[in-house]
Amino acid sequence: MTTICGHSVDEFVEMVTRFHGFPAPGIIISGFMVDLALELRRGDGLYEVLCETSVCLPDAVQLLTPCTFGNGWMKVADTGRFALAVFDKRTGEGVRVHLDARKLAHYPEINAWFFRLKPKKEQDGERLNAEILAAGKGILGSAPVKVARPFLGHHGMGDTALCPSCGEAYPVRDGDRCKACGGWELYEK
Amino acid sequence: MTTICGHSVDEFVEMVTRFHGFPAPGIIISGFMVDLALELRRGDGLYEVLCETSVCLPDAVQLLTPCTFGNGWMKVADTGRFALAVFDKRTGEGVRVHLDARKLAHYPEINAWFFRLKPKKEQDGERLNAEILAAGKGILGSAPVKVARPFLGHHGMGDTALCPSCGEAYPVRDGDRCKACGGWELYEK
Repeated sequence: MTTICGHSVDEFVEMVTRFHGFPAPGIIISGFMVDLALELRRGDGLYEVLCETSVCLPDAVQLLTPCTFGNGWMKVADTGRFALAVFDKRTGEGVRVHLDARKLAHYPEINAWFFRLKPKKEQDGERLNAEILAAGKGILGSAPVKVARPFLGHHGMGDTALCPSCGEAYPVRDGDRCKACGGWELYEK
Repeated sequence: MTTICGHSVDEFVEMVTRFHGFPAPGIIISGFMVDLALELRRGDGLYEVLCETSVCLPDAVQLLTPCTFGNGWMKVADTGRFALAVFDKRTGEGVRVHLDARKLAHYPEINAWFFRLKPKKEQDGERLNAEILAAGKGILGSAPVKVARPFLGHHGMGDTALCPSCGEAYPVRDGDRCKACGGWELYEK
């Protein structure tokens, strides 16, 4: 039986629907990617995850591993590539898994979805799902990697002070005022 | 009885422990922040969330709302301020809730924790938790906001092509090659 990190596909689809809102094709593929990365990684120490995209993949990571955005063990460096690395949090050594687009030739519906070759309405959702389950890890590639220093370990806040402009606490390392008061416009005036 | 988005505190602590790994003080406070923001927001249309920190708060959002990092309805713009905005995804109008550090005077253990005034070992965890529950929404501030355009709506990928350098799919808007091949060093060579 096909499993994703020990869950049946149906179980995983249910988990995804509850968390992500709907069982997007990208997140089912993401489940296989997380499964493969955990299978291939060496060592059994604590690990962290680096996601190279903000779309779908981070939710599979958060569902299937102890690593979340808010606890800092999952980081996102958005190169836009559909890939993740699972690595030892001390050394950075680990494995990178990506979707290998060149392997999609045998899966026309996945190929059309991935490269947005047809409008959503024309996609054959049932066939797409069937191809994703048939393909499983067969459309993935992997390589050993050593994650660079800036992505290792915890994103601490460092010292905190009150911003002289807005009065809210902010990390002192950002300068003499918080980034928002420094000109980053999150809100309209 | 104190509730957090309809959950008892014990239930929320259990949800947090399962997802985030441990019931960090910041995520319990985050729960009250999400609760207040949803209470104050006007309108009943679909909403999105903007988090101003990557620490703790995003996990409370992901647990208590339909908005996750991977589905794009929660965005993070890391000003380092402990704040979030819940807003209408079409207009950007909504409410911002922040931890008002000036209200911490009556809660010495929260104050010491928030400003890292003593080493973790010297923190009185039990007292900290008691103060957090006693304070509830009493240490928060809020204001109506209109979230700026760049943070509204979905982060689409746009057109995708194969990077001539690594051969992986990447968003064409990033240029003639993917960001990683363009020099962003995620991995050591």
